[in-house]
Amino acid sequence: MSLIDTSNAAALSALYLRVRNYTEELSEPLSPEDQTVQSMPDTSPTKWHRAHTTWFFETFILEPYESNFARYDEIYNFLFNSYYVQVGDRFSRPDRGLISRPGAAEIAQYRANVDGRIVALIESADDATRAEIATLLVLGCHHEQQHQELLLMDIKHVLSINPTEPAYSANSANSAYSDSAADGSAPTQPSAPPDLGWVEFEGGVFPIGKNHSDSGFTFDNEGPEHDALIGPFKLADRLITCGEWLNFMADDGYHRAELWLSEGWAYRNEHNWEAPLYWHGSDHGWVMHTLTGTRPVDPNEPVCHVSFYEADAFASWADARLPTEFEWERAAQLHIDAGATAELTPRLHPVVASDSELGLLGQMFGECWEWTGSQYRPYPGFKAPDGAIGEYNGKFMINQMVLRGGCAYTSEGHIRPTYRNFFPAHTRWHLSGVRLAKDS
Amino acid sequence: MSLIDTSNAAALSALYLRVRNYTEELSEPLSPEDQTVQSMPDTSPTKWHRAHTTWFFETFILEPYESNFARYDEIYNFLFNSYYVQVGDRFSRPDRGLISRPGAAEIAQYRANVDGRIVALIESADDATRAEIATLLVLGCHHEQQHQELLLMDIKHVLSINPTEPAYSANSANSAYSDSAADGSAPTQPSAPPDLGWVEFEGGVFPIGKNHSDSGFTFDNEGPEHDALIGPFKLADRLITCGEWLNFMADDGYHRAELWLSEGWAYRNEHNWEAPLYWHGSDHGWVMHTLTGTRPVDPNEPVCHVSFYEADAFASWADARLPTEFEWERAAQLHIDAGATAELTPRLHPVVASDSELGLLGQMFGECWEWTGSQYRPYPGFKAPDGAIGEYNGKFMINQMVLRGGCAYTSEGHIRPTYRNFFPAHTRWHLSGVRLAKDS
Amino acid sequence: MSLIDTSNAAALSALYLRVRNYTEELSEPLSPEDQTVQSMPDTSPTKWHRAHTTWFFETFILEPYESNFARYDEIYNFLFNSYYVQVGDRFSRPDRGLISRPGAAEIAQYRANVDGRIVALIESADDATRAEIATLLVLGCHHEQQHQELLLMDIKHVLSINPTEPAYSANSANSAYSDSAADGSAPTQPSAPPDLGWVEFEGGVFPIGKNHSDSGFTFDNEGPEHDALIGPFKLADRLITCGEWLNFMADDGYHRAELWLSEGWAYRNEHNWEAPLYWHGSDHGWVMHTLTGTRPVDPNEPVCHVSFYEADAFASWADARLPTEFEWERAAQLHIDAGATAELTPRLHPVVASDSELGLLGQMFGECWEWTGSQYRPYPGFKAPDGAIGEYNGKFMINQMVLRGGCAYTSEGHIRPTYRNFFPAHTRWHLSGVRLAKDS
Amino acid sequence: MSLIDTSNAAALSALYLRVRNYTEELSEPLSPEDQTVQSMPDTSPTKWHRAHTTWFFETFILEPYESNFARYDEIYNFLFNSYYVQVGDRFSRPDRGLISRPGAAEIAQYRANVDGRIVALIESADDATRAEIATLLVLGCHHEQQHQELLLMDIKHVLSINPTEPAYSANSANSAYSDSAADGSAPTQPSAPPDLGWVEFEGGVFPIGKNHSDSGFTFDNEGPEHDALIGPFKLADRLITCGEWLNFMADDGYHRAELWLSEGWAYRNEHNWEAPLYWHGSDHGWVMHTLTGTRPVDPNEPVCHVSFYEADAFASWADARLPTEFEWERAAQLHIDAGATAELTPRLHPVVASDSELGLLGQMFGECWEWTGSQYRPYPGFKAPDGAIGEYNGKFMINQMVLRGGCAYTSEGHIRPTYRNFFPAHTRWHLSGVRLAKDS
Repeated sequence: MSLIDTSNAAALSALYLRVRNYTEELSEPLSPEDQTVQSMPDTSPTKWHRAHTTWFFETFILEPYESNFARYDEIYNFLFNSYYVQVGDRFSRPDRGLISRPGAAEIAQYRANVDGRIVALIESADDATRAEIATLLVLGCHHEQQHQELLLMDIKHVLSINPTEPAYSANSANSAYSDSAADGSAPTQPSAPPDLGWVEFEGGVFPIGKNHSDSGFTFDNEGPEHDALIGPFKLADRLITCGEWLNFMADDGYHRAELWLSEGWAYRNEHNWEAPLYWHGSDHGWVMHTLTGTRPVDPNEPVCHVSFYEADAFASWADARLPTEFEWERAAQLHIDAGATAELTPRLHPVVASDSELGLLGQMFGECWEWTGSQYRPYPGFKAPDGAIGEYNGKFMINQMVLRGGCAYTSEGHIRPTYRNFFPAHTRWHLSGVRLAKDS
Repeated sequence: MSLIDTSNAAALSALYLRVRNYTEELSEPLSPEDQTVQSMPDTSPTKWHRAHTTWFFETFILEPYESNFARYDEIYNFLFNSYYVQVGDRFSRPDRGLISRPGAAEIAQYRANVDGRIVALIESADDATRAEIATLLVLGCHHEQQHQELLLMDIKHVLSINPTEPAYSANSANSAYSDSAADGSAPTQPSAPPDLGWVEFEGGVFPIGKNHSDSGFTFDNEGPEHDALIGPFKLADRLITCGEWLNFMADDGYHRAELWLSEGWAYRNEHNWEAPLYWHGSDHGWVMHTLTGTRPVDPNEPVCHVSFYEADAFASWADARLPTEFEWERAAQLHIDAGATAELTPRLHPVVASDSELGLLGQMFGECWEWTGSQYRPYPGFKAPDGAIGEYNGKFMINQMVLRGGCAYTSEGHIRPTYRNFFPAHTRWHLSGVRLAKDS
Repeated sequence: MSLIDTSNAAALSALYLRVRNYTEELSEPLSPEDQTVQSMPDTSPTKWHRAHTTWFFETFILEPYESNFARYDEIYNFLFNSYYVQVGDRFSRPDRGLISRPGAAEIAQYRANVDGRIVALIESADDATRAEIATLLVLGCHHEQQHQELLLMDIKHVLSINPTEPAYSANSANSAYSDSAADGSAPTQPSAPPDLGWVEFEGGVFPIGKNHSDSGFTFDNEGPEHDALIGPFKLADRLITCGEWLNFMADDGYHRAELWLSEGWAYRNEHNWEAPLYWHGSDHGWVMHTLTGTRPVDPNEPVCHVSFYEADAFASWADARLPTEFEWERAAQLHIDAGATAELTPRLHPVVASDSELGLLGQMFGECWEWTGSQYRPYPGFKAPDGAIGEYNGKFMINQMVLRGGCAYTSEGHIRPTYRNFFPAHTRWHLSGVRLAKDS
Repeated sequence: MSLIDTSNAAALSALYLRVRNYTEELSEPLSPEDQTVQSMPDTSPTKWHRAHTTWFFETFILEPYESNFARYDEIYNFLFNSYYVQVGDRFSRPDRGLISRPGAAEIAQYRANVDGRIVALIESADDATRAEIATLLVLGCHHEQQHQELLLMDIKHVLSINPTEPAYSANSANSAYSDSAADGSAPTQPSAPPDLGWVEFEGGVFPIGKNHSDSGFTFDNEGPEHDALIGPFKLADRLITCGEWLNFMADDGYHRAELWLSEGWAYRNEHNWEAPLYWHGSDHGWVMHTLTGTRPVDPNEPVCHVSFYEADAFASWADARLPTEFEWERAAQLHIDAGATAELTPRLHPVVASDSELGLLGQMFGECWEWTGSQYRPYPGFKAPDGAIGEYNGKFMINQMVLRGGCAYTSEGHIRPTYRNFFPAHTRWHLSGVRLAKDS
């Protein structure tokens, strides 16, 4: 998402429609039945994502700015509010999969209606109002991009439950998803990665949360910008591969308590984890569920769908540790300064980059979200905005770990070095991998 | 279902197709999304019902009798087996709502395929084989009729979860469901029912399980025929109405422990029951969810969707008791002997009956399943058939209560005085009502 | 308990004190710590049993009859009411093991206080009042005898949790418990039992609930006396032995779904049952926890601590069934008529009986409670008494199975042919065994 | 605990016996029944604490150093290992309250046996061995002091369940517990505290984890010493009082979602929190359960028994925040440098201090554990020791929040500025209070 000239209504509308249409494009391969299922409380049905993102624009832009505003459907404010307590009551999250109506086609109508009204509003607004709207619109677009990623992660989980082993989209000709190794889809990596190398970084006091995104946009939780003291450290120059993970498994990594955090060990035992999520033993070795169907695990691709607990145990086994989020951000910044701009595009949206552009480190952006050793807490001086919009990030700052870097499912323009993703330590239905660090 | 001449292939095929088509007719108002949802472990998605009944014919008729038999899809044997352990593994019941594929349209294809093969098999079979097939075919048709009733009960529950209060079918012109009071749909009863009257029955030793159905068909659990000693008793001449239930509520019936079985009282407290299932308070008094939408509770209609615990507490409050299943069957038999044949058609399939045909008692058949005070145990001498078909009934004979009489959702030809329906004491998503009894 | 002359105060007091002292005798081997633990919601701490039985006399006799009545301690009415809703609120049952105070010694003081007041009341009452009191006193004594049996069953379970494998009482010289085979304690049966024989009984209409106890006492649920129609049947002449149960296990009885009720099969799988409760594999074969410690399973002794689900599966495997409670009572009556009175004493209270007294059947009384195939429902005409005492039995008449015959832990005078014990189908911490039946 | 001359056997023994005897002193008011109960999975029975601390010395000192070592009882190694996976299997933690034997008296014998052997070992060891033993002995003593605090916290919870509202020790004459306001016991604070003041601290890079304890002892998690960058901040000069907490409650603090972390809000709603743990409404206003019985909440005393969720919500309401653990440690260090040594003794062990000794801040040590905003993660360069001892701290470094300062129950010599206590955000049976911070 590039920097927006808020005085340009056409540009604003184009941005808005591009983001909105991409959601529909992602939903297109999915049947009404696919779009209805919620496979666990963490996931949401596809049609819910499509409706909720629409509700966001309706609630935070149309309601305050549209004259003679009336809700498209009053009950939608109840059904499609996710967690904004200040906006009113919400339908129970774990029960989203019990709601058959409105159906997928009705959601399409809802989307079209709100899209038309948003575009009309952009065009009819005076400059001052349009500037206000633009701020919310950009937030809404980034919000929708987050849900685009979730939509893919969630449907991957939904389809993984199904013993028929369905593919989200089997047609690799027209789908970018097929070439994503992180996603676990074909084709495999052409050759083995080089041995793991370590890049050394000096210690010092460095700025954290400094916005370098070309759109100028960041979420509130990425700031305020502040200094942090970082000791000297080394960072692995690529992600851990499935082959390395298989070594961990072969060395009994899933059965050695001394490698694990106590809580992680209990969780592993309760859930009988023996491998990353979506891996299954077969007559031909380990295979894994992907968006394009089930296929063999490729030892050369980055390991994905591991929890923080597993990532931390792996790091212990490898006599290393996970980086802090500050170390990661510092390294990412230097990586970009060294010319790594091309990598900011996730693998689903390939851009050809010359070697010289790739910087110091491999696979920093758009491959797998990388677990850090930092728990998700507010930065010094953080203050959530007033009102319902303030519920966006701050209230989740407890018992979650920060992940950095984006993944193959991340939407274009949605990756930046300051981005703080976060998930609880036990979850792994998101695309999460491992980069190691060490003290220097 | 009338008596079958098994030598007549055309008649057999016609019977089969009539039952099969009715399932599709019932599913017709439902969207693919509607057909996908499972609202609780007790219910199943519509498309699962459609597939499972098809699997039953495929497994118990095509597999043993079709030459060059091959399964339509191997995985369907896993997905659509309900509980027949001897046929192989089954997909986890509470997770049926997580399976988006095969979708509703694919199930239609599966049904068409099996239907074609069954009809071909009927026509090509020699007489001896056709007679064998006919026995299984009639069982399969009755099995499908049970699922037709479940399909309606289940979708009623699915839609009840939805805050948009959807109707299964709003068009009362073309739908028989609209005139069913037991179902809770409009129009309301024209006038208040007469005061509750009591019909007296003499005691004695009487035959139980004596088959009087015109089709000659009964499930194994309805027999063996045997004598039972029944004391003199009185049976109410109609069902308890919603108005009478409102009196029970007004007299604090849901809050007086002394009226309730201990287990029922605990269950009530845990679930905060204050009224029958589907009843909700509104500004205009009690309303209820029905297949045709939400409408006011009609005090003149039979109360429905109450658990055994509630039925038993009501009976205590009314200084009466529930009939035993033997008392009920004895009364039903005499009722029919007195000319009540017309009533054997459930309310969804109305037949005009002259008063003289109606026998001694009102609302005995096809209104609401009537809770009896008898737990569901095998009759003396009961023996389940060998093989997987033997799993049909016998293995459920513990911790369930018997209900008698059929309900408005019951399919035509599926009601008879010996029919033993059964549900656990706490369930109430089925159409279950109350008829009182007393010692004479 | 023999028939009481209610005009004889001394006899009444003696009866009362004999029952009361026996409870203390049973508690004597137990430390304060032992008496405090509740091992699962079904069990209660020893000191709770001692206090609750005291509360029963205080509440149902002292409160209405003692002049200037004052509770020993107001809070005890909350702590030691078990389930009498009409008497007031109760402390949460599953939390009884969290209450360290009052301690075991304080309960002894409570018991002594109430005992003194009861005896004084008996002595000071006029004849009419004493007759009223006597009725309640006898009920209270039978109630306490029920708890004596529960106390032993419960402490057996408490101690079974403990990896130190403690004995309730290791001293077999002074303890009757050591010679009880049903309890699983030493010494073992001297020799193998005879092959299972079958006693035939004619069918007919017979009285059920006819009181033959020498005390004249029965619980309300044993009546009203009424006729029942019983078909001809055969009853096994002894209980199933551990050796026969080992055969069932060796024939894969715990892994063959077709032998089990569906609900039982699910329960077995959830709890991984492989043997009766308290059996454990050891280097020397199956051993079992008993009140006198852990010892080898003796193939000659009756199998004990099996659930209804297991008993029913065993019967299916043996091509037989469980008797109905009416069949059992009819047989027990004829057994007594044939001279079996001596057997009415449970094995913990041995009485030497001449062979001629033993009747038709072996092990009918005082060995193991015998599961019947009858669910626990009220007899025709049953009506619970008014008031709190009416909560004694009636409100539990759902989802429980009837057991007959008494067990080794049953108190003297507490066994009779009409006695209806009841437990849910999945429980097995009580002494429950199996006697088979067949149709004739 | 003062600095140990490890060459002095008598001093070592004296230290050891002083710590060991204090545990028995704390247990002395408790009956065998009290010592048996486990009120929730987080707590442990008193006799378990007494045995586990003994097992620690037996396992980590006697086993490696005693010649001809034999365990006191093999099964104790199973029963009293808490979480040391590398030492062997452990008894299930939530079931500790089901173990009646060994009883309290047997544990006393176990303790005496191990004490005798430890003292003998100290005396007989050569200097080099004694130096090794001393390191483990001091660790064991600090370990036991942690359990002394837990013992009091746990028994407070056990007794709180009891409707008789028992006191741990009612005799305020001989018990130090009576004068602890933080514990909620009488007498009340003589007068209202001064208005909350703020002490300002400059920012900069400061050392963290620098050991200033007089014993020279720290746990591994308190280091390694490292620099941290801290911004300028203000710290409240005393703890939040119950009176201030009542204001929060009166301002609907427990019902305003916008003040709470999302996870905290969900937890509050699930558990219906309306006040700190142990507070109950009464006819005379709020009262609270304490070790000396139930007494009114004193508005002048520090609020205690609040969770992190509540502390964080309170801080939001007060327009402030919780301090980070680094801010707290920096302030504590300056506080001590300003003469606050006397305060390092918790309130249960009062030491009279001259005003001049009290430093900058009030109530920093030994009052209530103070929630910080820092999640419990390893310091840079942290490495757990090898072997089972390495399981002491490191494996719990996830999803817990750091608390600082000690509390009234903390043992003497067990408080220091670097001490990192930690609990999950939802727990509150420990003595935890609130000190506010702000950015400068």
